[in-house]
Amino acid sequence: MSFEKWQQQLKNATGFSDKELAWETQEGISLHPLYTLNDLPIDSAKDTFPGQFPFLRGPYAAMYSSRPWTVRQYAGFSTATESNAFYRRALDAGQQGISVAFDLPTHRGYDSDHPRVVGDVGKAGVAIDSVEDMKILFNEIPLDKVSVSMTMNGAVLPVLAAFIVAAEEQGVKAEQLRGTIQNDILKEFMVRNTYIYPPKPSMRITQDIMTFCAHKMPKFNSVSISGYHMQEAGADAALELAYTLADGLSYAKLAIEGGLDIDEIAPRLSFFFGIGLSFYIEVAKLRAARKLWAELIQEFNPKNPKSFQLRTHCQTSGWSLVAQDPMNNIVRTTIEAMAAVMGGTQSLHTNSFDEALALPSNDSARIALNTQLILQHETLITKVIDPWGGSYFMENLTVELIEKAKEYLKEIQQQGGMIAAIEAGIPQRRIQASAALRQARIDSGEDVIIGLNAYQMENPTHETPVRNINVEEVRRQQLASLQVLRAARNEQKVESALKVLIEAASPSSTRENNLLYLAIEAMRCRCTLGEVSAALESVWGRYRAPTNFVDGIYGARMQKEKSSEHSQEWLVLKNDLAIFLQKHGRPPRILIAKMGQDGHDRGAKVIASAFADLGFDVDLSPLFATPEEVCQQAIDNDVHVIGVSSQAGGHQILVPELLQKLTASGSSTLVVVGGIIPAEDEKELLRIGVKSVLGPGTPITHAARSVLDALSKLAQRGVL
Amino acid sequence: MSFEKWQQQLKNATGFSDKELAWETQEGISLHPLYTLNDLPIDSAKDTFPGQFPFLRGPYAAMYSSRPWTVRQYAGFSTATESNAFYRRALDAGQQGISVAFDLPTHRGYDSDHPRVVGDVGKAGVAIDSVEDMKILFNEIPLDKVSVSMTMNGAVLPVLAAFIVAAEEQGVKAEQLRGTIQNDILKEFMVRNTYIYPPKPSMRITQDIMTFCAHKMPKFNSVSISGYHMQEAGADAALELAYTLADGLSYAKLAIEGGLDIDEIAPRLSFFFGIGLSFYIEVAKLRAARKLWAELIQEFNPKNPKSFQLRTHCQTSGWSLVAQDPMNNIVRTTIEAMAAVMGGTQSLHTNSFDEALALPSNDSARIALNTQLILQHETLITKVIDPWGGSYFMENLTVELIEKAKEYLKEIQQQGGMIAAIEAGIPQRRIQASAALRQARIDSGEDVIIGLNAYQMENPTHETPVRNINVEEVRRQQLASLQVLRAARNEQKVESALKVLIEAASPSSTRENNLLYLAIEAMRCRCTLGEVSAALESVWGRYRAPTNFVDGIYGARMQKEKSSEHSQEWLVLKNDLAIFLQKHGRPPRILIAKMGQDGHDRGAKVIASAFADLGFDVDLSPLFATPEEVCQQAIDNDVHVIGVSSQAGGHQILVPELLQKLTASGSSTLVVVGGIIPAEDEKELLRIGVKSVLGPGTPITHAARSVLDALSKLAQRGVL
Repeated sequence: MSFEKWQQQLKNATGFSDKELAWETQEGISLHPLYTLNDLPIDSAKDTFPGQFPFLRGPYAAMYSSRPWTVRQYAGFSTATESNAFYRRALDAGQQGISVAFDLPTHRGYDSDHPRVVGDVGKAGVAIDSVEDMKILFNEIPLDKVSVSMTMNGAVLPVLAAFIVAAEEQGVKAEQLRGTIQNDILKEFMVRNTYIYPPKPSMRITQDIMTFCAHKMPKFNSVSISGYHMQEAGADAALELAYTLADGLSYAKLAIEGGLDIDEIAPRLSFFFGIGLSFYIEVAKLRAARKLWAELIQEFNPKNPKSFQLRTHCQTSGWSLVAQDPMNNIVRTTIEAMAAVMGGTQSLHTNSFDEALALPSNDSARIALNTQLILQHETLITKVIDPWGGSYFMENLTVELIEKAKEYLKEIQQQGGMIAAIEAGIPQRRIQASAALRQARIDSGEDVIIGLNAYQMENPTHETPVRNINVEEVRRQQLASLQVLRAARNEQKVESALKVLIEAASPSSTRENNLLYLAIEAMRCRCTLGEVSAALESVWGRYRAPTNFVDGIYGARMQKEKSSEHSQEWLVLKNDLAIFLQKHGRPPRILIAKMGQDGHDRGAKVIASAFADLGFDVDLSPLFATPEEVCQQAIDNDVHVIGVSSQAGGHQILVPELLQKLTASGSSTLVVVGGIIPAEDEKELLRIGVKSVLGPGTPITHAARSVLDALSKLAQRGVL
Repeated sequence: MSFEKWQQQLKNATGFSDKELAWETQEGISLHPLYTLNDLPIDSAKDTFPGQFPFLRGPYAAMYSSRPWTVRQYAGFSTATESNAFYRRALDAGQQGISVAFDLPTHRGYDSDHPRVVGDVGKAGVAIDSVEDMKILFNEIPLDKVSVSMTMNGAVLPVLAAFIVAAEEQGVKAEQLRGTIQNDILKEFMVRNTYIYPPKPSMRITQDIMTFCAHKMPKFNSVSISGYHMQEAGADAALELAYTLADGLSYAKLAIEGGLDIDEIAPRLSFFFGIGLSFYIEVAKLRAARKLWAELIQEFNPKNPKSFQLRTHCQTSGWSLVAQDPMNNIVRTTIEAMAAVMGGTQSLHTNSFDEALALPSNDSARIALNTQLILQHETLITKVIDPWGGSYFMENLTVELIEKAKEYLKEIQQQGGMIAAIEAGIPQRRIQASAALRQARIDSGEDVIIGLNAYQMENPTHETPVRNINVEEVRRQQLASLQVLRAARNEQKVESALKVLIEAASPSSTRENNLLYLAIEAMRCRCTLGEVSAALESVWGRYRAPTNFVDGIYGARMQKEKSSEHSQEWLVLKNDLAIFLQKHGRPPRILIAKMGQDGHDRGAKVIASAFADLGFDVDLSPLFATPEEVCQQAIDNDVHVIGVSSQAGGHQILVPELLQKLTASGSSTLVVVGGIIPAEDEKELLRIGVKSVLGPGTPITHAARSVLDALSKLAQRGVL
């Protein structure tokens, strides 16, 4: 009856020791087969309580025992009218708060009539151009009662201003508004890419919003610090944890530099984590985050106990959804939701099962919502606070995650804080490396995904009915509304409001005016979101991120098990590339391109990384490129092939344009397209001349083989 | 920083103390909002290890660290050919063992051509009449490699014999066979009702099978002691736990009385639990079961450590599936599967989401299978043994469940063991009371079920495509096969084999011959299953269970919150019944009828119970009645209305017959039908004269109102 006896039994039964059977997670944490009393960390939850420092067991004393987490589904599409109807249906069906998804043009500060955004209006979120749209969005939704969360970072000034003015005209004062604005620009520079201005003026906006909210909007969280997008971009849990808290510290500092006291800002910071399928890790992450934050925030000497409490929203992982056999995603999302809840989240979004294919349909959105309602009402799960407290394994894992995160935090501190670290590209590189590693684990079969790299369906069908947005119709409606708005407003007032904004933004300004306050004034005069953004852009310019990618990670992992089938395939590909080099005097050169306002670049960067490891000569286009710019870059760099990565539906309009430009320039460069491409789009793309379409989940080795084959055919025809 | 401080914080935040916020489970266990170090039971998992006494943390030292649980989906329908194709597809798709569902005629020992089973052939499982069917069932499935579980109790002798002979003719010897036969007759008398003979001879069969397997089939588990059906019948977790282990002890005693040593039988007993939505309770139940069993089995002084190990199969709850918005069931099944896995099950069946409507379709079966594969491969859940070990809450709950179960075990022991207790109706009454209580908790809105009594769909659709079995076609094929079989066999050998069986079964026999051995001989001669059953029935007779139901439970709960809407409704109904009594001189009298081979009587008994509490005069038909018998009972008892409860599709044939008999007898008795009635059947039933159809999930108050309304209409027309 002892641990030693157990070790011997295990060895007898399996042939392996417990150490040999330990499993290394993506985070580099070793999961032992068994945890016992001896694994319980001394300083663990043993005698801590929810609602008390260090808050490991929960930010609040009562947690779900009095009220469960808030069901808060993130949604928005096409017009304000349609999204409003969707929100009202969801509130009737049991949803408890609204979470607004804006379309890409709104994120990037363009009105719907801007020429750069022709293919993006209303596509991956709702199109909002003005206060009038915002009023429609919240029509008959009482903003003094329903809490509203807005995922907005780049165009946060005009959007928050429009929200405040819309409420005001609904008869609700700013001080009554409840909810959150994301306003987390640091992670945009790190991973999400919906920034507009360079880092410094962007941080000023954040600062002004924090200040304004601290003074005028007591029930509103002014920053929602988001690790979610880091996880989506490929960060493992330890990276997500460390960088999210590091961002939080940066905002706290920024607010204090702006004149606020730590106790005025810390209780207004909320957090936002992604919850993937690594069940135990995700539960531990939320527990670890609370303890770590309570410790980190001490450096500012807060007096208010609330300043120590990390409160969080969670969202199940979008990246973990699989396009193949999509109903499996209901299972995945349920598991993730349970982790978020057992970790003690304050609110939760559960993804719809068809989101790997398109925006959620009404049916899939209902099942996603019901997932939370079932957890709340049918399972007893809400009855006990921090049910894992005391678990040898969970307490151990929580401490392990804290230690891992501390290492990354130290690295950021040594660099002089998060802004400096981002400028040096440190978190970006670590996250990209993590994404490349994960992809290699999947492509090598080491990590199994049901329906994708194992147990595939015999006769895969694409029959899931998906929501299709009629972009042209949405754009037509938005353009008509803009026309009405512009016709009715006082142009003089508009110009003067924008002028005041420009003055306040200029470096020479004394900065007495809060930019949010001025943006509210502009919104009252019916300035559009695009106009406010453009005014500020005229002073600060638009930010262009450096394009780069990591190398060595993917290839090393693929070659790890030299004898495996996947490793063999990888070596064959490498050899074929060497032959190509010998034959043509240079390696095949590929331009990985992102066009339109779609900033999702995880796929593009992983492809770039892996192709480079194989021996391709890889270029990356800047983000947000036009077809013309991509065509020019392809010609300038004399690439053999352009790989377009499309995650938000932009390919429908942008790829035909690219092909046209190439033809017009007499270029024979091949075009392949990868990403989220619905079946009917695939047909059309192939018809107009795209060489191959690589849908979601395509292993990189297959993608590389497909590109190589196409090039060989060209070579045979002497075109190369 | 203390518990007292937390108590104060909780009171401040919620207005309630921790005691007031405690939640009482169906088992009568109080869940506190918070568990701390002080709640850790002294004798808990603290220093115990998996694979070591008392096995709380797992029966094996290695658990899933070397190999995950076995994915074992329970399936079978229509013919052996179709089921065989289904099994082979499932094995290809990742399933790891076969679990056979037999149709009701097979369960009850009737060949497909028996006149009593016209509507049941191939309906809720596969029809097996002979060795030839069994050979087709396992065609091209290597029985020395694939483990087979058979849910068979009543007709266990001919079925197990046919399996052994089919394997033999495939070239696989009995000693090579791996798997389980349920062979748990005690719970049939308690809840499931697929018995054939009275308890005493039934136990002799069990004994002979245990003895045969102990000597001849070293890799085969001879009894799978099932709590699953108790849970399905309404037992809470403590009842399920106690009675399952009590049954286990009875079989151990029986085997010893039959001449086996405890170490020859105990390692061959496997268990089978249902896993419902009470997540924590279900995890704790499996942990508790292992510890309790290890302690209980000590009374037999086993020497082999394996005799102490409780190994279990689990199945997610069928009863928890909801017909309304059936995709929600994917969520429910995922939660249940996680509980089974975190509790450390050895194998698992996950239900398909459409099983509240019909047998699983190919698509729903695939998603159910994938639920397990995702848990095994994508979540890290298998990496750690007993992850909950040490959790203050889970360790406490495990001990609480053990204590509750011990109370029920004591009651059984005081009665003189399980057989005596069943004869006295003790476990039946407790389980029926638990079912009535649960129904009242749902009908009163106290327990919430999404889509059923809360958050119903706005526009409910019945669009889920379901599998439909063509019973007549299946029966035609079975009859043809039987004809071929009978034509080809040596009738003399058949008769002599049956004669030997009859002699061995007779009370005067010296019992030197093992009945399974003789059944195998009979199967080799191509006796049919029905012939073997009938031979034994000729000696032992067919068992008829007493019909009774509990009262007082449902009504008391409904009146608990006098001010609630549901309680008001209940009181109005009671009042209307009192008026009826006054007016007609007697209360309305209802006959709740079960027809055909469908023994699922949870619904019938709960309805009887609740209707009686309302003031109805309630009769119950015997189980397995014919339409003629029900018609006669209705006339004899002068009932106003017959309520037919149909759970296995028998209504299609049996209800029209009943109506015909009533008409022929000149009776004006109303007929209503409840249970699992597909939408198209509903239309047909109403068309032919059924007064109302009460689908799954109908609150009992609605059912009662509907019956009362129909009676009032009759009264107005002077018919009553």
